Amino acid sequence: MSYLRNCWYLAAWSDEVAAGALLARRFLDEPIVIFRDGEGRVQALNDRCPHRFAPLSRGRLGDGVLSCGYHGLAFDGSGRCVRNPHGPVVGSMAVRRYALVEAYRAIWIWMGDADDARVDRLCDLGFLDEAPDTAFSKGYLHGEGHYQLFVDNILDLTHADYLHADTLGSGAFTRTRARITEAADRITVLRDCRNEVPTPLMRVFRGITEEDRVDYWNTVEWFAPAILTLRGGNLPAGAPRDGTLDAMATMNVHIFTPETARSTHYFFASTRDFAVDDAEFNARFAETRYRIFTTEDEPMIAAQQDRIGERDLADLQPLMLRIDEGSVRVRRKLQQMIDAESASARILDK
Amino acid sequence: MSYLRNCWYLAAWSDEVAAGALLARRFLDEPIVIFRDGEGRVQALNDRCPHRFAPLSRGRLGDGVLSCGYHGLAFDGSGRCVRNPHGPVVGSMAVRRYALVEAYRAIWIWMGDADDARVDRLCDLGFLDEAPDTAFSKGYLHGEGHYQLFVDNILDLTHADYLHADTLGSGAFTRTRARITEAADRITVLRDCRNEVPTPLMRVFRGITEEDRVDYWNTVEWFAPAILTLRGGNLPAGAPRDGTLDAMATMNVHIFTPETARSTHYFFASTRDFAVDDAEFNARFAETRYRIFTTEDEPMIAAQQDRIGERDLADLQPLMLRIDEGSVRVRRKLQQMIDAESASARILDK
Amino acid sequence: MSYLRNCWYLAAWSDEVAAGALLARRFLDEPIVIFRDGEGRVQALNDRCPHRFAPLSRGRLGDGVLSCGYHGLAFDGSGRCVRNPHGPVVGSMAVRRYALVEAYRAIWIWMGDADDARVDRLCDLGFLDEAPDTAFSKGYLHGEGHYQLFVDNILDLTHADYLHADTLGSGAFTRTRARITEAADRITVLRDCRNEVPTPLMRVFRGITEEDRVDYWNTVEWFAPAILTLRGGNLPAGAPRDGTLDAMATMNVHIFTPETARSTHYFFASTRDFAVDDAEFNARFAETRYRIFTTEDEPMIAAQQDRIGERDLADLQPLMLRIDEGSVRVRRKLQQMIDAESASARILDK
Repeated sequence: MSYLRNCWYLAAWSDEVAAGALLARRFLDEPIVIFRDGEGRVQALNDRCPHRFAPLSRGRLGDGVLSCGYHGLAFDGSGRCVRNPHGPVVGSMAVRRYALVEAYRAIWIWMGDADDARVDRLCDLGFLDEAPDTAFSKGYLHGEGHYQLFVDNILDLTHADYLHADTLGSGAFTRTRARITEAADRITVLRDCRNEVPTPLMRVFRGITEEDRVDYWNTVEWFAPAILTLRGGNLPAGAPRDGTLDAMATMNVHIFTPETARSTHYFFASTRDFAVDDAEFNARFAETRYRIFTTEDEPMIAAQQDRIGERDLADLQPLMLRIDEGSVRVRRKLQQMIDAESASARILDK
Repeated sequence: MSYLRNCWYLAAWSDEVAAGALLARRFLDEPIVIFRDGEGRVQALNDRCPHRFAPLSRGRLGDGVLSCGYHGLAFDGSGRCVRNPHGPVVGSMAVRRYALVEAYRAIWIWMGDADDARVDRLCDLGFLDEAPDTAFSKGYLHGEGHYQLFVDNILDLTHADYLHADTLGSGAFTRTRARITEAADRITVLRDCRNEVPTPLMRVFRGITEEDRVDYWNTVEWFAPAILTLRGGNLPAGAPRDGTLDAMATMNVHIFTPETARSTHYFFASTRDFAVDDAEFNARFAETRYRIFTTEDEPMIAAQQDRIGERDLADLQPLMLRIDEGSVRVRRKLQQMIDAESASARILDK
Repeated sequence: MSYLRNCWYLAAWSDEVAAGALLARRFLDEPIVIFRDGEGRVQALNDRCPHRFAPLSRGRLGDGVLSCGYHGLAFDGSGRCVRNPHGPVVGSMAVRRYALVEAYRAIWIWMGDADDARVDRLCDLGFLDEAPDTAFSKGYLHGEGHYQLFVDNILDLTHADYLHADTLGSGAFTRTRARITEAADRITVLRDCRNEVPTPLMRVFRGITEEDRVDYWNTVEWFAPAILTLRGGNLPAGAPRDGTLDAMATMNVHIFTPETARSTHYFFASTRDFAVDDAEFNARFAETRYRIFTTEDEPMIAAQQDRIGERDLADLQPLMLRIDEGSVRVRRKLQQMIDAESASARILDK
């Protein structure tokens, strides 16, 4: 499975690229440097000087121009060489640029031809912008596994019943069959658990016991290439969902960008509609999530990748269960998009 | 050289697998998990859930049933799926099981088809069971080298004269030609050193000096695939070997199980017929052996493997000396067994 | 690009091989052990016993004879087996020897057939011998990059204007075009900077400011395979170069020996004609150079190698600038020498 290129991948959280900073990161196995130009706009270039292949991220940034730290060739945000201290500037001195767009507190990169970048294809995550600071957290972790394994992990939340049994799981996801729907731009996995055992975290948040019963639901939406939103809420069993009672809703994103065929940039963020002014709760909530992702999800996926090895999961004929339907549909849809992209590239080549 | 599969490899010392424990170990480049079922019997399964390839060793063990820690599929010791929380259990959900037998304080694994496992092919090491605790020690080390290099090391004890010159060598092994005999199930290398310089350790144990002379002998027996017993003793030079005098006999095993083509599980144990009630001596003796194996043998073999690299020793046309006769015979016999196994597999395939 | 073999590579500084010492080092991807024989002459052998491939560098040296630490085969400095404790010595027991010559405080190795070694091909670096201790320093660092990248680094000193801007660069190298000349045995890159801004270190050494102007010059001479001398000096702008004023000349060597295709032994030394009795200055000067090489040059070249990866720089079609002329000429000349060597080897094979 090759990569989808004509789409937006999350490259960094906006605050990872301060003015004057050079962020070196590998996407789809290509080394890229991200920085802000003189106007504060983010720019991305191939992180390899065309002269002697020194990483431009080891260079100096001044007035929005990035100079190679080895022999001084300088490039602007468009990748054009703007200074050759050793002779004339010629067109062939350009370095590949990548289109970026900054939105939703993040920097997004288009891995196809920069001239083809279409901002209208950006997935709408406006709720991230609107979240108050005391009800918002975000983070990054480096994942040792193929990005699709991370996508699968969110598409199938039954894993919480086993991997996160002492925080996020109560068995309800397993007992409640998912409803999966497909639209032009997304695949949605909905789980609506009725009259169920509350999860350990719900018990803490609601001050209830294992004997109490709750209704709770989760909607996971996948957008290509590997962007997932996860919205959930819960209420005492049988309570109306009309807003009379606080459903303690959370709205989350899990966004994956391939670093290499075996490693992934994992970006996550969360906001909620309860305790929105409680900074202390917010910090604790963020810390709990980070601990779960780094000590439970990531190690399990890394171990899974280790067992899969250099091969592709599908080639190893994994046993398919009902819970894999989301994963199967997403992989199929993404593969169709990749195939379409390849076919279109072949036609253009003629 | 591929691996012999229809034979018993030492997988772990029994006490490495306590009740409730999950031991993950790679044998012949296959990941395997070992545990005890409800009856305390050891069981071994392929350490890869057939669903999403998470290692089962990251799962939970309860009532002798091993549940995957990712999505909860559960398997009994036969590899049969006994619980699928997400739908019906079907036959294809099985995971490969390996036959085990527990004997001589150890767990042995049959790497061929479990149904073909033959307990009568287990090498008799009953003397390990009979050893009193105060005259017994055992251990494990991870060796960075092909298992056959570790086998060679024991088959040719002349190395002690050089590698262990300050403990186990006195030059006598080099001066005394080995007698090698071959039987249906074993190859025996005997060295009978007469009127020889005592080794440094003998001097300490017997309270004698370098000027004194001793008779000493060693019998190394190799059993397929890589099990070696080593029995030795010593007496003042010329003394009768009828038991009148204490020959300070030791009985040892060195057992090697391939982890990968370049690494080896090294299991060793030792008992003796002198100072059998001396727990303090026993501890010191064990410590000395462990130090020798880990600081002298293993590093030399790892360095040897480094020089051999990815190739096979035989392809590099090593210089053959008289002392290599044991190694040559063992490699030839083992290769015949592997070839016979392959031929038999081909016939069954038709 | 394969390696030139019939030439002298710097193997070690003389004081790296004390009497009784065994130095294990890899050259051109071959493991080699260097030691001194009974007469104190340096000797080099392939670092792999022909018997079981244990590294001879893990052995024992006595009376100029090197015994394998595993089974005791012993070799003299000619590679001839002089002791086989396990049977007769025969001719095939030899280990490959390499010709060495000790000169200029260093040990040089001929990687071609030892019988073809020609001392007259040794590059004359006599000035290293003559340097007083208080005006001499030398060192070694392990470089993570192809040796030719390290050669390029010295051939094109414009990099100092960017990579060493706070010590060795002032922009003058960039502003002054190099004159490159080629002789039978060398390629020379001369830069003569007139009326230029002094470098930061010059300001400190001469007690001048950025406003002052200086003339300064550098001559880099490359000798095959990867030996570079670098001589430089500076004077107040316009001052006569007749020795009336102290030109603060330094004479340096940068000598590279391939370890593998991706790593390099980097040997450097420096002497000078000013402050020659000042041991304290000498130490500070050496420390500054070492810091620059290890924290600026080596990391940049390692990063360059990382971006180049497994491929060859030339295959990646780097952008060529005027400053690369030295590098281009050296690579071409070296390739001609390698090709001539291969052609000559083919003729001899017939």
